[in-house]
Formats: sequence, C-alpha cells, structure tokens
Amino acid sequence: MEDIVIHGSAGNSRVIFNDSFHSFYNYIPAGKKVVIITDSTIANLYGKSFADFAVIQIGEGEKHKTLQTLEKIFHEFLNLNVDRSWFIVGVGGGIVTDITGFAASIYMRGLSFGFISTTLLSQVDASVGGKNGVNFGEFKNMIGVFAQPSFVICDPTFLSTLPKKEFISGFAEIIKAAAIRDMDLFQYLDNNVDAALNNDPAVLKKLVYESVRIKASVVQNDEKEAGERRILNFGHTFAHSIELFMGLSHGEAVAIGMSLASEVSVKMGLLKKEEAERLKNLITKYKLPVMFSLDKDLVYKTLLKDKKREGDYINLVLLNGLGKAIVEKVPLYKMEEIVDDLC
Amino acid sequence: MEDIVIHGSAGNSRVIFNDSFHSFYNYIPAGKKVVIITDSTIANLYGKSFADFAVIQIGEGEKHKTLQTLEKIFHEFLNLNVDRSWFIVGVGGGIVTDITGFAASIYMRGLSFGFISTTLLSQVDASVGGKNGVNFGEFKNMIGVFAQPSFVICDPTFLSTLPKKEFISGFAEIIKAAAIRDMDLFQYLDNNVDAALNNDPAVLKKLVYESVRIKASVVQNDEKEAGERRILNFGHTFAHSIELFMGLSHGEAVAIGMSLASEVSVKMGLLKKEEAERLKNLITKYKLPVMFSLDKDLVYKTLLKDKKREGDYINLVLLNGLGKAIVEKVPLYKMEEIVDDLC
Repeated sequence: MEDIVIHGSAGNSRVIFNDSFHSFYNYIPAGKKVVIITDSTIANLYGKSFADFAVIQIGEGEKHKTLQTLEKIFHEFLNLNVDRSWFIVGVGGGIVTDITGFAASIYMRGLSFGFISTTLLSQVDASVGGKNGVNFGEFKNMIGVFAQPSFVICDPTFLSTLPKKEFISGFAEIIKAAAIRDMDLFQYLDNNVDAALNNDPAVLKKLVYESVRIKASVVQNDEKEAGERRILNFGHTFAHSIELFMGLSHGEAVAIGMSLASEVSVKMGLLKKEEAERLKNLITKYKLPVMFSLDKDLVYKTLLKDKKREGDYINLVLLNGLGKAIVEKVPLYKMEEIVDDLC
Repeated sequence: MEDIVIHGSAGNSRVIFNDSFHSFYNYIPAGKKVVIITDSTIANLYGKSFADFAVIQIGEGEKHKTLQTLEKIFHEFLNLNVDRSWFIVGVGGGIVTDITGFAASIYMRGLSFGFISTTLLSQVDASVGGKNGVNFGEFKNMIGVFAQPSFVICDPTFLSTLPKKEFISGFAEIIKAAAIRDMDLFQYLDNNVDAALNNDPAVLKKLVYESVRIKASVVQNDEKEAGERRILNFGHTFAHSIELFMGLSHGEAVAIGMSLASEVSVKMGLLKKEEAERLKNLITKYKLPVMFSLDKDLVYKTLLKDKKREGDYINLVLLNGLGKAIVEKVPLYKMEEIVDDLC
C-alpha cells in the first residue's frame, strides 16, 4: 500500500499507511525542533513514545474545540520560544488534528505541521485534506483555514485501543466515501461487516486506504471547496445541525444526515427507493443510527449558519443514484419545507 | 498612475490610486453582500458614505488588535448571517485592515475582502502585500495569515484629515522603501521635504505610488517571506521591540529601528558612516526620531520572540550601502552584544 500524496496549493501532503507512528521524526525536515499537541487519553496511553519532545495537552471533546484552547496553545508556544524553526505535530483524533492544524497555520503566520492520526474517523477523513479550525458559538468549524499537513501517519496500532463508540463512528465516513463515489467499496463494506467490526487488520487497512484515496482525488481537484469538494459534505449539512445539540458522535450524526439526504434524494426523483433502503441497511449493519427525533426549529436555525449556505441558497449534497453524489442549490424556502417534511 | 497588481498565490490584489473611495462597490463581484469593518474615527468622519451597508465598529489603537476583537467581529458576522456570499471591506489604517483581513481569512475558512486605506502609513505599507493578523501577549502580529485583499483603494482624500502625528508616521515606511531599494526615491524625498510635509497632492501621490511599487515588486517575488521579502523588515526588528512598550507610533519606532540598523551596518563594515548620517538626516527632516533611551533587557527579550528569529539566529536586515538592503543571519549571542552596545 503506497503513500497517497495530495498536491496542495501551498505544498504536498503525504498520507502514510505502511509505517509505525514511532518513525514520525523521519518525516520532519532536518534541524526542526518539535512540539507535540495531543489530548490526555493519548498522553496516558502513548505518552512514553513522545518523551523526548515538548508536549502540549488540550482538553477532550468538542467543547474544547474553541478559540480559548487556541489561546492556551499560543501561550505555551511563547513559553517554549516556538518560532519558524519549529515543526508542530498533532497526535490524536479529528479534534486534536483540526486544532493543531489551525494553531500551526496562524501562529507567526504559519508553521509547518503534520499529524499522527489515532482514530478511525480521523484516519479516513478528518486528518486528511487540509481543512482545520475550531467551533464558534454553537456552530461547528466556523473559524479555520485550508492548509495541508506535511504528513498524516495512519498507523493501525491505535485502532485497537479505541473505545467502541468512537471506532463505530469512523465507519460513517467510510460509508459516505462509498456512497458518493465508489460502488466497489460499497460492496466491499457490505461483504465484510463482521471482519471490519471485529477490527480485522487487513480489512481495516483496505477501508482506510480506499477512503483516503477517494477523498484525496476529490480534494486534489478542488482544494478550497469551490465546487466538486462539496460532495464530501454528503450527510454533513444535516449532521452539523444535530451533532452539537444532541450529544451524538460525529459518525452517528453523519449517518443520520446521510439517511435524511437520501430521503430527500428519493423525493426529488434522483434516487430509487430501493437504493436509499440499501444505504440505510448498510448504515444499520455498521451499528449506526438512521433516524432520530429532531427538533425542526433547531435544525433549520442551524442550517442557516452552515458554511454550505450561500445567500438564499444551501448547497445540498444529494445522491443521483447510489455511488454518485451531486450538489443541488436548494432555495431556503424549499429547505424549510424539506426540514418540515423530514422531522 | 496605473493600478499596481500583485499576483498572489491565491488570487490577484489590485492597488488603486486613481479612483475615489466612493466607487469601492465597483470593485466587488456582482451579487455579493457587503459588510464594512471600521473604527470610530472613520465612522464619525465618513460614516455617511457607508450608510447603505452593514457596519461593524472596532476599538482604536494597538490594544484592540487582539483575538478578543476578532471574537466580537465573529459574533456580529453571525448576527448578520454573514456567509460565503458576502464580501468584507476594511476601511481604516493598518490596525483596521490587519484585523479585517485576518477575520475575513478565517471566518468560514475564508471570505473575499478588500480595503479602503485611510492613512498614509497603511497606503504605503500596511494594507498592501497580504500580511494580516493580531497581537498576542506582548508581541506584535504574532497570530495571522498571508492572504491578499482583492483590492486596496489609496484615495488621497483621507490624508487631509489625518492627525499630524499619524501623517508623519507614514513617512518612515516611505523612507524605508527608498533606503532598501531605490536611491531615486531617496533623492526625491530629500528634494521635496516641505511639499510632502505640507500635504502637496502631487508629491504625496508620487510617494505613495513609488512605495507601493517597491513593496509590490518584493512581495511578488516572495509572497510568504521565505527570503527576499525580509528586506521589507528593515528597521522593524528593533521597532517591534520598542513600539508596544514605549508608546511610540509605528513610524517613530521604525525610524529609530532604521537608525539602529544603519549603525549596526556601519559597525559591520557594510555601510559608510556618511551614508548612515545621510539616512538619519532624512529621517530627521521628516520630523521622525533617530534615537530614544532604550531598556536593553526589554529590547533583547522582545527580539527573542520576534518572527524574524529562527532558532539561535535572528534574520537582521542591514544596509550594504544606501539603497541596498541585505539579510544577515546574526547569532543570538552576537545580537546580545549588539543590543548591549547600542542601548
């Protein structure tokens, strides 16, 4: 399994599947000093592996993905005398890598950074592709930039110590990658449910690799999300509306979001009812939810603030048949009807 | 006088000299909604010109150039339902344009923005070239990104209402542009002191234009300051060390910084004593200071946090003859001797 390289506008990003995270120092330019950003879980489980480096620990969970956590990191950077000769490494799941990438990108107008990705969700999605940022107000990833990590190490070692709920969460983004682009991957997911859920190394390695391959090819064509990259948001317009409020994991929220988006796709005559059922069955097989009782006012209010919104329209990602995502500009008044209908 | 266009990595930046700020809307892509960010002075003097648009007012002075002011702006963006279909316009001096450019660049991972530059200092330097950011802790512009404004309007109208101290401050950056790159401009400055200080429109227009031309040519070659762009920091390594602490204007601090850097240049055998005197004479003619009693511990401590530092070195900009700046990697121990010697 070869590395996958994304050629970003400001440098290349190498996703590494066949190396231990212990080798991360080999991917850092010679002479750079290193500071690690991680959370307490990773520090407890793997801290010894980073004993030679300065380590900054941040709080766990979405509630710490804030400008205040950034300030804390900047204070620690100043204490360490971090300057442009340093390299920043984020070790963790999507929250750690999102914050690390953003902190590195704006401190002194940008230091180089890389990730050791420790969850299934971050290996298949969050740590790859150069989006970073923090939440603001009640809204997810409202503040951030596009900036590619120099490297992302996807070492399967970490997957064996993941809590079940977090492990399961990752499959939502793998199913998304299949649903928008790749029926072979969809079929493979369907054929290997038990092996995947039981952490079979060969199956997981293939699932991680194929998900990154699909994401990388989309990002390569549209790094800053002016068009095609929007299809990666399949399920996410609704997901962002419900994730912060309802205490669901990102994967659970995306799973529900994909079910809703597939129902809208059916109603708009784009997707067959059987195809939507097939998608929802796969989601269910991976122990993810397809429905949830939603507060329609809350969903609609949050949609209004979503980054997918442009003026009086929302860019909604729908399925034009299973394995083929399209982006539809849906007027807000229509969106309100849709939400009314779904919730 | 034609527009000057900087071709940035993520888009072009047009600096406009021959149009009234009232025409700014013509430079905004069709269909965009507009929000203005400005300070209370500009709002009082020119607010009527922006009555058709949403306006966000921020506090005045370096003490408001903070992450907290950014948060205030983001809250107002949310209240206005600002999304990617909006365009952000900063109307003010360097503090307003630095904050506006940074806020626009990280809200929803980046909206388009442009500037109406209202001070001499921001027209000749701050608003041009794509650096933006805020201060952090005691350090200037510690947090920010490189991102080019779509347009910068340099309308001389504003210069007539500038307080004297702020007007004078702008000449430091014009003298800097001449000292690092252009002896014709240096000579022109020397020949037109009275006209310039008396706000002669033709002389000022030429000074603004030539300063932007010099800066644009440097930025064009090295947008992200990996090399050549560092020469624009002539006088600034010392200036940043003293500006925040000593209540000086940016221009005054840069003027002192240039004097100090020219003395170091003489000591290192790069600049003739007469050339340093000639530079200091010009600074003095423009009513800017060349000396100040400095606290050497404070200067040294601040140098350690400067963005020009890389590990055990500081990239110090010196003059290898008047009109020709070079960047020298000076080891920290040597820097300590230099500060000791100068202060």
